[in-house]
Amino acid sequence: MITIDYANCLVPRVGKHGLEANSFEPHSPLMARLAQIAEQLAASRGSGWERWRLLPFDPMRSEHVQSVRDVAERCRGRFDTMVVLGIGGSALGNIALQSALNPPTWNLLPKDKRSGPRLFVLDNVDPDNIGAVLECAASSPGGLERTLFNVISKSGETAETAAQFLIIRKALIDALGEREHANNIVAITDPAKGTMRTICDEAGYVTLPVPDGVGGRFSVLSPVGLFSAAMCGVDIEALLNGAALMDERCADREAHRNPAAILAMILVELARQKNKTIHALMPYANNMYLLADWFRQLWAESLGKRVDASGREVFAGFTPVKALGATDQHSQIQLYREGPNDKVIGFVEVEQFEHDITIPPGLGVDSLQYLEGSTLSALLSAEKRATEYALVESKRPNFTIRMPRVDAHHVGEFLQLWMMTTAFAGRMLNIDAYDQPAVETGKKATFGLMGRAGFEKYKTEVDAALEETSHVV
Amino acid sequence: MITIDYANCLVPRVGKHGLEANSFEPHSPLMARLAQIAEQLAASRGSGWERWRLLPFDPMRSEHVQSVRDVAERCRGRFDTMVVLGIGGSALGNIALQSALNPPTWNLLPKDKRSGPRLFVLDNVDPDNIGAVLECAASSPGGLERTLFNVISKSGETAETAAQFLIIRKALIDALGEREHANNIVAITDPAKGTMRTICDEAGYVTLPVPDGVGGRFSVLSPVGLFSAAMCGVDIEALLNGAALMDERCADREAHRNPAAILAMILVELARQKNKTIHALMPYANNMYLLADWFRQLWAESLGKRVDASGREVFAGFTPVKALGATDQHSQIQLYREGPNDKVIGFVEVEQFEHDITIPPGLGVDSLQYLEGSTLSALLSAEKRATEYALVESKRPNFTIRMPRVDAHHVGEFLQLWMMTTAFAGRMLNIDAYDQPAVETGKKATFGLMGRAGFEKYKTEVDAALEETSHVV
Repeated sequence: MITIDYANCLVPRVGKHGLEANSFEPHSPLMARLAQIAEQLAASRGSGWERWRLLPFDPMRSEHVQSVRDVAERCRGRFDTMVVLGIGGSALGNIALQSALNPPTWNLLPKDKRSGPRLFVLDNVDPDNIGAVLECAASSPGGLERTLFNVISKSGETAETAAQFLIIRKALIDALGEREHANNIVAITDPAKGTMRTICDEAGYVTLPVPDGVGGRFSVLSPVGLFSAAMCGVDIEALLNGAALMDERCADREAHRNPAAILAMILVELARQKNKTIHALMPYANNMYLLADWFRQLWAESLGKRVDASGREVFAGFTPVKALGATDQHSQIQLYREGPNDKVIGFVEVEQFEHDITIPPGLGVDSLQYLEGSTLSALLSAEKRATEYALVESKRPNFTIRMPRVDAHHVGEFLQLWMMTTAFAGRMLNIDAYDQPAVETGKKATFGLMGRAGFEKYKTEVDAALEETSHVV
Repeated sequence: MITIDYANCLVPRVGKHGLEANSFEPHSPLMARLAQIAEQLAASRGSGWERWRLLPFDPMRSEHVQSVRDVAERCRGRFDTMVVLGIGGSALGNIALQSALNPPTWNLLPKDKRSGPRLFVLDNVDPDNIGAVLECAASSPGGLERTLFNVISKSGETAETAAQFLIIRKALIDALGEREHANNIVAITDPAKGTMRTICDEAGYVTLPVPDGVGGRFSVLSPVGLFSAAMCGVDIEALLNGAALMDERCADREAHRNPAAILAMILVELARQKNKTIHALMPYANNMYLLADWFRQLWAESLGKRVDASGREVFAGFTPVKALGATDQHSQIQLYREGPNDKVIGFVEVEQFEHDITIPPGLGVDSLQYLEGSTLSALLSAEKRATEYALVESKRPNFTIRMPRVDAHHVGEFLQLWMMTTAFAGRMLNIDAYDQPAVETGKKATFGLMGRAGFEKYKTEVDAALEETSHVV
């Protein structure tokens, strides 16, 4: 089970930069408030935009998991390459699961060493990047015929995903013909309505649902995240079971033993009381690094809000930062220790790696003797502990999320932990954690600049606001 | 030539969150101060820790460039895979140059489509990651015999790099024999002294120098960054020429037309006057994204300092954040627009991509009509402009670094621009931009925990400071 050690966020360790230890006692006012939030979350659980909470339960019987399994089964053996088309919540979960649960060399492995196709996620509209990936797919043995495109878009109107889709659709039609091209597309979209739904129905694409009441950044345990994972051999039942287990722990109304309540309290209160508004997530494990990117979206987009529930301007939110241990000790720790004391650093520590490596003896150089015969995991663990110590010495609050190992079950726990922490934090801040009103302006302005009918006035506004000046050097 | 448009950092665009436009007039007090700094930098140029400024000049005659070219020439054709061993400044530049100047699918390309070996950079001691990369190298055709290991460490005592080195040395000796293994190692290290120097001299490794007076984070244009780039077909002369050109522009004592002076002023003054202490770098180009990681080290480690030159506690520094456009519009922009107004967002815009892609017409769906017949680069450019507009609308300061294209010359300009900006910012803050005193504690604590002789007391201190508590959930 994942645990969170937060001793280094408290006064005894970091003095005036920490929280009072007694705030964490069972009946403190803050614990009472968290218990109340746990009640509220129990009441709203599974309704409105909190339907994501139900996703991990009953994986053997749930319809959406069954459909993922079925489609993955039908695709098995037919494809050497899989390309996900999506952006934001329709890409970050896919990337995170793949990098956490498969080796970094996955796409380089020979076919018989992989339990699924090579995986690419096109999460942007950079032409050089998309061109390189399509070229790679097309020029591999089997070419596009053995390439599966998985387009993920609830509405089908997200400009980036739509552009990607138009490009691969044409490439597939050119390579396989109008009728056959549909065999190489699986769409994950609204089951009932929208542009992509219409396109899929007309073209006969296989589809999987984006379930109702599940927003993009809470969709990793829906078909959005599960399908590419299942295709690449991830044990999605273990993933969901881990998430379900964590969900139960995070439903505990005894807040002092509820990991999401405690994590939310640390982060929200260190910001509120002590001005630590930058939240770094620093795994000491390469395969957890891109989960920090998934966390970045969840934390930034959910909590970065101008108004609270009563409409008051609050400009809430924290800036998530991802870092990698031990690598970033040689990049960010100088700042974290000596710069402004404005951060909370969250370590992720892995207790057991898949394959450890012993550092071989025999070089015979005195100053490196201490390494010989030890293991890389011992070194990594010492580095993490040393960094923790160094931060405490500079009175910088930090905590550790400890994972027994990086496998599907514990990654499931990790995902649900952060989604639940976000739900708690949203309520503590009294903001809506499920909308993203500020993203609309940019979308409309893009439509205007791209000449979409009905959006002409936005182009005029943009051009007026960004007129050229002489402030260029 | 790279330009910087900073109109969106000024009062007319972002009101009270911006700087006064007249601060940028030729004889304003701030410009006078910057001119003074330009004088000081001209005086210290090429001496002490500012010897990095000389690196780009005279690439055809300079000794270190010649030696890089020679060794690369001798290695040409002998290796299918190259693995860089290093961390921090001995890895970030290598990664940045490779991802900026070669396609993202480089390692997947067949040999005849690549102008150099596959490249891996081991910038951590994660056993699963290192294991996967070594396995991949060893099991490829030719195996370790056709794998070049490039160990980068000035002293040889950096624990992470030393551990990596001990592992690959043993693997090479096992595969090729004691004598032959030296043919597959090129070390970049101190030319005269230190642990790695001794090892290299005894084993007969080919070496390249880490030049004197060039610190890790300023070493990308030394053999540290150049050798792997040259091996992978990067035009290192163009890179250096671009940097030299930028260095000249950044030496201009007319500060209002000096790009580094202006960039430093924007970032330092927006922090000082307006509390914008988070500096996001958001390229709208995938291949520039990992340059933002290189920037993160430069900016954090150079400027994050507890004391100023007079010994006063200042806790200086800014938190660098990397983001990717358009991707992070769907992740971070909600926060950037509606969260605390504590950031400056720096866009990087690319005017011409290598291979643009036209979005094909013919789907016949009204709501996507606007995309058809346009190009991905036009869409990306519209997204960037729309985001800039949306930020201005929310009064969030931002600027744009405009790159005509991402090629070696302009990447060289970009690197030197940021190193010079760091030099200016260091002087504006009156701190030492070239040391990293806070990293020492963690190093010593790591030695203590790993049982290195002479460091026993650190283990005792760490264990006492981090004693287990009940604050675990």
